[in-house]
Amino acid sequence: MPAPASPLDPAVAARLKRDSQGLVPAVAQQYDTGEVLMLGWMDDEALHRTLTTGRCTYWSRSRQEYWVKGDTSGHVQHVKSVALDCDGDTLLVKVDQVGAACHTGDRTCFDADRLPLS
Amino acid sequence: MPAPASPLDPAVAARLKRDSQGLVPAVAQQYDTGEVLMLGWMDDEALHRTLTTGRCTYWSRSRQEYWVKGDTSGHVQHVKSVALDCDGDTLLVKVDQVGAACHTGDRTCFDADRLPLS
Repeated sequence: MPAPASPLDPAVAARLKRDSQGLVPAVAQQYDTGEVLMLGWMDDEALHRTLTTGRCTYWSRSRQEYWVKGDTSGHVQHVKSVALDCDGDTLLVKVDQVGAACHTGDRTCFDADRLPLS
Repeated sequence: MPAPASPLDPAVAARLKRDSQGLVPAVAQQYDTGEVLMLGWMDDEALHRTLTTGRCTYWSRSRQEYWVKGDTSGHVQHVKSVALDCDGDTLLVKVDQVGAACHTGDRTCFDADRLPLS
């Protein structure tokens, strides 16, 4: 489970609307090109670390652990800005992505599977 | 509850990884400027309608009903492309947004609440 308490700024924590697992989706976008790179999940602690360390930190739902993007791959996300949406349930993190955002080696996680329109 | 069955292309449905409510997050992005406009939720039926009607359709978790973006506000999202991410649990929908994406009147849902970095 995500950490129950966190040093996240209480004024921010009060506005966060978390899901039943204590998480909010975080959209990572390349700050200059506008590419949507990936979507990850953050709890209070992951958001706190993202705001204070300059590196994007997610909660891995599959591994049930914190995950500093790039710690194993080298494909670091340097944080440029973080915004909360109008209902407090989604984050937009603008980053400078080193290398590929996707574990497949693609630049973004959305490059490979375009769905047909009809 | 979202509709239990849907005419969504079975080849697409087989790749979707839905949450416990049968939903996946859908990031809406302005196709030409790259602005991230909002995040909504889709079940199979909402995705099917989005792929086949040319208009973004979401499942409203608060109202528990389908929601064709712009039907009440006029702030329609014309669908340009839809992509599924590498693990099949997030959609990126590129749209041409008419007017404001946010119900507050802001262009995007992320314009108002930038969080402080430290």
